Amino acid sequence: MSERVRQIDATNIDALALGCAVLGAGGGGDTSVGRLMALQAVEDYGPVPLVDLDDLPDDALIMPCGGIGAPTVSIEKIENGAEGARLREHVERLWGRPVVAFLSAEIGGSNGLIPIVWAARVGLPVVDADGMGRAFPEVPQVTMHVAGISPNPAVMTDERGNVVIFDAVSGHWMERMERAAAVEFGGMASSSEYQLTVLQARTATVLNSVTLAIRIGEAILRAEGDPVRALVEAIDAVALIEGKVVDVERRTTAGFVRGSATIAGLGDDGGREVRLEIQNENLVALEADAVLAIVPDIITVLDTESGRAISTERLRYGQRVTVIAFPCDPIWRSERGLEMAGPRAFGYDVDYTPVEVLHGG
Amino acid sequence: MSERVRQIDATNIDALALGCAVLGAGGGGDTSVGRLMALQAVEDYGPVPLVDLDDLPDDALIMPCGGIGAPTVSIEKIENGAEGARLREHVERLWGRPVVAFLSAEIGGSNGLIPIVWAARVGLPVVDADGMGRAFPEVPQVTMHVAGISPNPAVMTDERGNVVIFDAVSGHWMERMERAAAVEFGGMASSSEYQLTVLQARTATVLNSVTLAIRIGEAILRAEGDPVRALVEAIDAVALIEGKVVDVERRTTAGFVRGSATIAGLGDDGGREVRLEIQNENLVALEADAVLAIVPDIITVLDTESGRAISTERLRYGQRVTVIAFPCDPIWRSERGLEMAGPRAFGYDVDYTPVEVLHGG
Repeated sequence: MSERVRQIDATNIDALALGCAVLGAGGGGDTSVGRLMALQAVEDYGPVPLVDLDDLPDDALIMPCGGIGAPTVSIEKIENGAEGARLREHVERLWGRPVVAFLSAEIGGSNGLIPIVWAARVGLPVVDADGMGRAFPEVPQVTMHVAGISPNPAVMTDERGNVVIFDAVSGHWMERMERAAAVEFGGMASSSEYQLTVLQARTATVLNSVTLAIRIGEAILRAEGDPVRALVEAIDAVALIEGKVVDVERRTTAGFVRGSATIAGLGDDGGREVRLEIQNENLVALEADAVLAIVPDIITVLDTESGRAISTERLRYGQRVTVIAFPCDPIWRSERGLEMAGPRAFGYDVDYTPVEVLHGG
Repeated sequence: MSERVRQIDATNIDALALGCAVLGAGGGGDTSVGRLMALQAVEDYGPVPLVDLDDLPDDALIMPCGGIGAPTVSIEKIENGAEGARLREHVERLWGRPVVAFLSAEIGGSNGLIPIVWAARVGLPVVDADGMGRAFPEVPQVTMHVAGISPNPAVMTDERGNVVIFDAVSGHWMERMERAAAVEFGGMASSSEYQLTVLQARTATVLNSVTLAIRIGEAILRAEGDPVRALVEAIDAVALIEGKVVDVERRTTAGFVRGSATIAGLGDDGGREVRLEIQNENLVALEADAVLAIVPDIITVLDTESGRAISTERLRYGQRVTVIAFPCDPIWRSERGLEMAGPRAFGYDVDYTPVEVLHGG
C-alpha cells in the first residue's frame, strides 16, 4: 500500500470514491454519480495523471474546482461534463496564463471525483492535494482562504452554458453571491475560486489527500471480516456509536441541506442515543448535551455492514450505522482555521476540543 | 422649447426628473433620490454634456447602465455614486476599448437620472437616447434586445464594491441571474448590459428621450392652471380616470414590486373604478373586465393637483390622482417588441391594442 499512486483510472476509482465519501463527513455530494462520471471519463479519455506539487513549476497556475450547492440536488441535477473546460477557459483568460492542473477544492464526497472527470476531458493532471481535507458547506471554508489566498476571480458555470465571474470584497460576500447564483441555477452549479500558484499551494492546501482517499477506500474494500473496524484502525478514528437511524429531519433551503439525524444504540450501545446536526456535512455529534465530536473534526456515518459512508442526503430511518469521528487536517485547528470552520463559525457557542482529546487520546 | 438641450445641469434636472417619472409608468425607481444625486453631482463635477449619436464616432462604444431591483428598496438603499466608474472600468476591460458615453438603459424613473450622476463623476457625456423610452421591470426588456444586441457581458456592482460579470445563454437567463444577485445584494444593484457601438445604437435605442423627458417636465413646471391638462396635451395622452386611490396592495418579492391599486372616480368620473396591476411598473389599467390601456403602452398615475407622476412604490390610500396613458415607442409595437414586453410577456392572455385605438384615436 505504500506504492505511490501515479494516475487515476478504473483500478482505483472505486477506492477513491469510497475514501472521498468517508472524508466527506456526510457532505461534498453523494459519490455514486461522481464515481460513474469518473469511470466514464477515464474510459473515454484515458487515465488522469495524479501529480505532486513537486512535479510542477513553482509559478504555474493551479485551478481549484468543484460543485457548489445542496447535495440533495446533486443527486438529480447532474453536470454535463463540459463545465470544467469552461471554467478553465475563463480562468486562463482572467489570469492571462495557462492552468497546469486541476485541484479538488474539497476532497470530500463527489467533489473529490468531479475534478477528475473534468481533467480527463481536457487532458490535464490533477494535483494530489485539496482545499479542505474533508468537505465543508461554504465557499471560503478552504485552506487557501486560511492561508490568505484571494477567492477572486471566481468563475461559476452551469450545465446550460451560463457563466458568472465574481470579484467579491470578502470571502463572506463570495459565499453569498455564489450561493445565490447556485440557487438560481436550480440548487447546484460548478465553480472555481482561490486559483493559486504551485508555490502557494505548498502551504495553502492539504497535501496527498487524493492518495489518502484511495488508501481509505482500499482499507474498506480489502477488509476481511469487519470493514468498519478495518477502517477505524486504518485512519485512527473513534467509533462514537453503533446503532440504528431512528429519526431524520432534513430540508433543502437556501442552497444548503440542513437538518439532523438521531441514532439509537444497538448491542453494546443499547440505551444510548446520539444526535447529528447537519449543514450539508455532519457538524456535531451530541449525546444528551455532551459533545462527542464537532467541526472541524470529521464525523462520518458508516453502513455497519459494508463500512461504506452514508452521505447526509442518503440517511434514512432504519439504517444500521456506525458513526465515526477522526481528526481534521491540522490547518483547521489553527486560530484562523477555527475562525473559518470551527464550532462558532456554524453558530455553536462552544470551544473546539479535538476528537482525540474528547475520547482520551 | 425647440432649442436643443446641450447639457444636463441644475437648470434642467428638475424638469428631467419630472419627465422621467412620467415616462416611468410608475417604475424605474422614485426620482426624488436620483434628482438629488444628479443635482449634487453636477454641483461637484460640473454639467454633463448631452450628446447625439451623430456627435460620436460610429465604432465608439456606448455603455447602457442603471439600477436593477425593486423600486421600494431603491428609496432606502442608495447608490454611493462610485458604481458607474466601477461599471465603466470593467466594461472597458472586457471590451478592451474605451467607453465614450453612458446611456440610460431606461429613461423612466430614477434610472433616467442615475447615469447622469455617474457620467458627471467620471467626466463622460450621456447620450440623448435610452433603451426603453419608458421603464420596464426586466433586464432584456430593452430596445437593444429587440434589435438583436447581445446582453453579454453584463457587469453588476453594489455599494460595497462587489463586482459580478455575467455571460448568459439568453436574455431570460441574464434576467434570472442578475435578479438573483440583486436580491442577494439587498434588493438593489447597479449594472450595465447590452453595450453597443454608436452605429448599432442608431437603430437599437429610443432616440432623443432625454430631451423628451425634459420637455415633459417643462410642460408640468410651466403649466398655467391645470398641469395635468397641460401634460396630457403636450404628450397626446389619454386621461383614463380622475379619482382617489381607494386600495393599494403591494409586496416586494423576488426583486420586484408586485401588486395592484384601485382608483375610484370623482367628479365626472364618479361611480367608475379603475384597477392598475403592477410589476414595478403599471402594466394594465382595467375597468371591470375591460382593458383601458396595457403594456407596452405607458400608464402613469399623476397627482391631480400638481401633475407630478406618482411611482408605484409611493401610491397611498386617499391620494387624489389622474391616471393617464400614452403610446410607447413604436419599436415595442413590432412583433419582436411585443414578444418581449407585450401583454403575454407579463402573463396576460390578451392581444395588445394600442391605447389610441382603445380610445378612438
